[in-house]
Amino acid sequence: MNTLGYYFRFTNFGESHGPAMGGVVDGVPAGLPLDIEAVQAMLNRRRPGSGAGNSTRRETDKIEILSGIFDGRTTGTPIAFTIANSDARSEDYDLMRDAIRPGHADATYMLKYGIRDHRGGGRASARTTAATVAAGAMAMQFIATAGISVKAAVESIGGFSDEQEIEDALAHARAEGDTLGGVVRCTIKGVPAGLGEPIFGKLQARLALAMMSLNAVKGFEYGEGFAAAGKKGSESLDHPVALDSALHTEQNHAGGLLGGISTGEDITMRIAFKPIATMMRPIPTLRTDGTPCTLEPRGRHDVCAVRRAVPVVEALASLVMADALLAARLSRM
Amino acid sequence: MNTLGYYFRFTNFGESHGPAMGGVVDGVPAGLPLDIEAVQAMLNRRRPGSGAGNSTRRETDKIEILSGIFDGRTTGTPIAFTIANSDARSEDYDLMRDAIRPGHADATYMLKYGIRDHRGGGRASARTTAATVAAGAMAMQFIATAGISVKAAVESIGGFSDEQEIEDALAHARAEGDTLGGVVRCTIKGVPAGLGEPIFGKLQARLALAMMSLNAVKGFEYGEGFAAAGKKGSESLDHPVALDSALHTEQNHAGGLLGGISTGEDITMRIAFKPIATMMRPIPTLRTDGTPCTLEPRGRHDVCAVRRAVPVVEALASLVMADALLAARLSRM
Amino acid sequence: MNTLGYYFRFTNFGESHGPAMGGVVDGVPAGLPLDIEAVQAMLNRRRPGSGAGNSTRRETDKIEILSGIFDGRTTGTPIAFTIANSDARSEDYDLMRDAIRPGHADATYMLKYGIRDHRGGGRASARTTAATVAAGAMAMQFIATAGISVKAAVESIGGFSDEQEIEDALAHARAEGDTLGGVVRCTIKGVPAGLGEPIFGKLQARLALAMMSLNAVKGFEYGEGFAAAGKKGSESLDHPVALDSALHTEQNHAGGLLGGISTGEDITMRIAFKPIATMMRPIPTLRTDGTPCTLEPRGRHDVCAVRRAVPVVEALASLVMADALLAARLSRM
Amino acid sequence: MNTLGYYFRFTNFGESHGPAMGGVVDGVPAGLPLDIEAVQAMLNRRRPGSGAGNSTRRETDKIEILSGIFDGRTTGTPIAFTIANSDARSEDYDLMRDAIRPGHADATYMLKYGIRDHRGGGRASARTTAATVAAGAMAMQFIATAGISVKAAVESIGGFSDEQEIEDALAHARAEGDTLGGVVRCTIKGVPAGLGEPIFGKLQARLALAMMSLNAVKGFEYGEGFAAAGKKGSESLDHPVALDSALHTEQNHAGGLLGGISTGEDITMRIAFKPIATMMRPIPTLRTDGTPCTLEPRGRHDVCAVRRAVPVVEALASLVMADALLAARLSRM
Repeated sequence: MNTLGYYFRFTNFGESHGPAMGGVVDGVPAGLPLDIEAVQAMLNRRRPGSGAGNSTRRETDKIEILSGIFDGRTTGTPIAFTIANSDARSEDYDLMRDAIRPGHADATYMLKYGIRDHRGGGRASARTTAATVAAGAMAMQFIATAGISVKAAVESIGGFSDEQEIEDALAHARAEGDTLGGVVRCTIKGVPAGLGEPIFGKLQARLALAMMSLNAVKGFEYGEGFAAAGKKGSESLDHPVALDSALHTEQNHAGGLLGGISTGEDITMRIAFKPIATMMRPIPTLRTDGTPCTLEPRGRHDVCAVRRAVPVVEALASLVMADALLAARLSRM
Repeated sequence: MNTLGYYFRFTNFGESHGPAMGGVVDGVPAGLPLDIEAVQAMLNRRRPGSGAGNSTRRETDKIEILSGIFDGRTTGTPIAFTIANSDARSEDYDLMRDAIRPGHADATYMLKYGIRDHRGGGRASARTTAATVAAGAMAMQFIATAGISVKAAVESIGGFSDEQEIEDALAHARAEGDTLGGVVRCTIKGVPAGLGEPIFGKLQARLALAMMSLNAVKGFEYGEGFAAAGKKGSESLDHPVALDSALHTEQNHAGGLLGGISTGEDITMRIAFKPIATMMRPIPTLRTDGTPCTLEPRGRHDVCAVRRAVPVVEALASLVMADALLAARLSRM
Repeated sequence: MNTLGYYFRFTNFGESHGPAMGGVVDGVPAGLPLDIEAVQAMLNRRRPGSGAGNSTRRETDKIEILSGIFDGRTTGTPIAFTIANSDARSEDYDLMRDAIRPGHADATYMLKYGIRDHRGGGRASARTTAATVAAGAMAMQFIATAGISVKAAVESIGGFSDEQEIEDALAHARAEGDTLGGVVRCTIKGVPAGLGEPIFGKLQARLALAMMSLNAVKGFEYGEGFAAAGKKGSESLDHPVALDSALHTEQNHAGGLLGGISTGEDITMRIAFKPIATMMRPIPTLRTDGTPCTLEPRGRHDVCAVRRAVPVVEALASLVMADALLAARLSRM
Repeated sequence: MNTLGYYFRFTNFGESHGPAMGGVVDGVPAGLPLDIEAVQAMLNRRRPGSGAGNSTRRETDKIEILSGIFDGRTTGTPIAFTIANSDARSEDYDLMRDAIRPGHADATYMLKYGIRDHRGGGRASARTTAATVAAGAMAMQFIATAGISVKAAVESIGGFSDEQEIEDALAHARAEGDTLGGVVRCTIKGVPAGLGEPIFGKLQARLALAMMSLNAVKGFEYGEGFAAAGKKGSESLDHPVALDSALHTEQNHAGGLLGGISTGEDITMRIAFKPIATMMRPIPTLRTDGTPCTLEPRGRHDVCAVRRAVPVVEALASLVMADALLAARLSRM
């Protein structure tokens, strides 16, 4: 359950305050030139910065490749990598040993496993996405060989889409010790027709699985999404204009997918993020023994995770597309 | 990719106009009393009725069990079943042999496979959900033994939530040869804490995968969903009030899941359906050779699939919960 | 665990005395012409005959295709099929309801599941191989398109390799109410180099898994097998004579595989079968409550299963090769 | 295909001369006390020693845990670990860049992937078993909590079972620049009845898959193995003497398994190893361009791998048993 993908398989490991995050990418075809600097650059995009809305934890997030690459190319064997946790101040979390943080996975991990690594959220930390970004950056290079590109962007934060309004809202939330959520939009271009599998391998289903696995995500839609629910069929139809190696349509209400399979038009999707649960204000909560207490957060936390989520969304979409691209090699004689 | 679930595994097979739909449910523990009449009753709920918004295809949708059950109980071996396609009038679809239906999977299947069963959508038909409902009804009986119940309902059709307004909208759409979408809400009650797996096995991710695999679904959200994206953290927090074998909270913005794992509160979700693409009006489209033509639909089609989707949503949620319930047996020493 | 293969996936279902045996073959590329009569012919080879050493159960073993084939070709969707159990005389087994048959799975199924279908072995019956043969016959047609052929034959029965000695041994065993085992040899020809995956996907590992899943099989070896353990390296080496799209060697001690990957030379293997456990003589045993009793078998049973196992071995080898053939499509850019 | 197990999953990564070998063990229940020193001790058993028949490569084989363990116990999250390659003298292999070693995977990897890491066998090296031993040592601790123990031993080397004869044969082979194979016997004790799954999850099938994935293994048998093929049913039968939570039999020809499921008696198996292909003598072979050449091996190589294989066999058996133990939690209501 820590593995995403059936053909292009990424296994994510690591806890927030353990020695390292990392992953294994299995199923990558041999002979793919892999630009590790580009992987590092995508990791850098996810790294905590100094702007408003960002955490102050400082990690170099330097990737180390352990296997699967020789002379700059993939060899067809598993690509394992690590990203060291160098700035993991576990002592910040000692106060949380006995308290559960509302809106976090503290209680559910404890209830599930009877044991938990309380330091910084452990396995439930968004720091696990570092490994996902690294693997996704590899997937992105793979799908680029088929002409596929993935681009995500912040659509709104705290309900605002205007850049200055967003900055103001973030500053305001920070001042109040509060946090904000938002929406990320993602578009996949250059998709060959025929990617995606019926029934439970529909491309939107695989994309939804990937996106909903991301911390703080509460909703996923593609194409017209929820808006389609209020429309008539005649308003929602895409008129075919040409059919060659792809299906070209006048509109793209469908979001590039019909029956779970790509038409060749752009795949469009939106992902909703809730506000970060950890706020810089006293929060009444419970101890693990059920008694009440007040939590005074002292770790380093973001005001808003949405901007940092952008490369993670791109990584997840790339992983799904890489898997679908391999699957498509098997669909015909 | 026709299989859903890792522990409680359902494989769906069958095409709209082939001899039978069916499935194999593997991983069901031995000794579960299985009420096949209850399975049939759930199948009957999905069956086309005579109300407004419904298709006129008449299928008995009678389930036949082939294996895995002995003396009324599961034996631990795969449960295979079939549902015959008795009222499959393939001739209705002969006109569609060479045309693609806009908004349908005709073109994408052809582009993917180079071959397609054009009769009634073949594998892309919503008739495949009959097998899903049967398997889901078995899953529902399994999770009931742990006290879990699943209940879905129509929240809105064509943007209307009032029952009379819905009926009017459906009648209007039918008169115009148009179609409508809608939203289904689903609630899972009695969920033990601790179901769901990090990272890619988060319960919301598995639920999203299942729901997004369903025909016409364009969006999925749980808890506050997309609305959370516009809120502050302080508005979105659930205050813990008790922690025993579950985490009890004053509110339930989270929708019963934290870190992908159940808290014990109700799991709530919403699923958006686009309007049915096949309309009872002439539709300009393309032939498979790319030349334009006009499609005059003659098959039997629903005006709105949302009501019939309700038991399918329940079935899919039940399958996901059954899988999670088995997974939870493995989480601790 | 009732599924074999990762890319070319066969799920086996059915019990000896249930309504039908059957299976689902998923992952078959679209556009493969499938000769169902050839599938039936292979099923007929497995069917109980009237020769010495054979059971007297009479089954037509007629395959019925439910899905996945349209106009004589695969469509890329799951191929489901059933084989009815028409001659299942459950009453023959009533005496066995409370007794366990030595050498059979009666006790282990009961200990595992707490419930068992006692009629003719239920799920543990060799009748489950009917579905395997049908699926294997489809796989055989698929691998034939790549020039691969699979041929198995009886090497020995009861220690005898000479055909007349075998007949005498079988007649003798039948007269004594005893049974015999034997060895089946299988050769795969026309194998392209490069099939098989490191580490746990080595072709010999997948072949071993498949063969050891077959009833009564006690051992598997390939190439020189156990004999290699007593040799020197210098005696066991295959000298390379040419290297083009395959590695050609003077000898083939290796059995066509190096590092788990095919060289292009023939793949050779041997499979050992124990004698059938059910003998036509009184057998002291235990009741399910642990008390002693004597079993007087009355069902219809083979004296020797080895000949009937030949098409099953071919089917299993074909399924493994089909899976490897698809996997090889993913190994390179 | 680099992953073994369905519930207790071990993914192996690393190449002989890359930065590190390693693995990810996923699916280990939370709360298992894990003795890393015992893991290290098992790794030490596999490490090249100085005795006759052993390589002179010097590796510390020190395990480093990256995740999944907190306060000495498993947390239910993936356990990732690395074993650094500290003594990897790649220059030893420069001469092999263009030549293929007979009996090795050089040619097959090249034919499969079109690219290969020629240094020391790369991914095909037996050094990959270091990670398998580490994971197996963890599995061994898990199954010990259920009373299961695994013990392997050398049965014969070069056809000799007497210890002094073995030493003489090894010395003789070393003097001649030759190599020897052998047989390892493995016994699993304390097995609860009911482990193993029909059909393709039969315990012998899973054990065979695991053992046949090991370098140089040519054959696998359990219980009476190939010898059973020459026996009569009456000679091969195990007489039941008691049936409680296990099936007790007078003999154990079956090797502890009936219908693929454990009886509770000891599971016995034998694994055949071919002689090491790399010999310390000039070997005529081919270059990758197909021209002939003579290979003068200069790396460090074993005369016989069989002794070092003993802990690897135990590790593989432990991994399979751990997987079966988890599977058994799901078999009943």
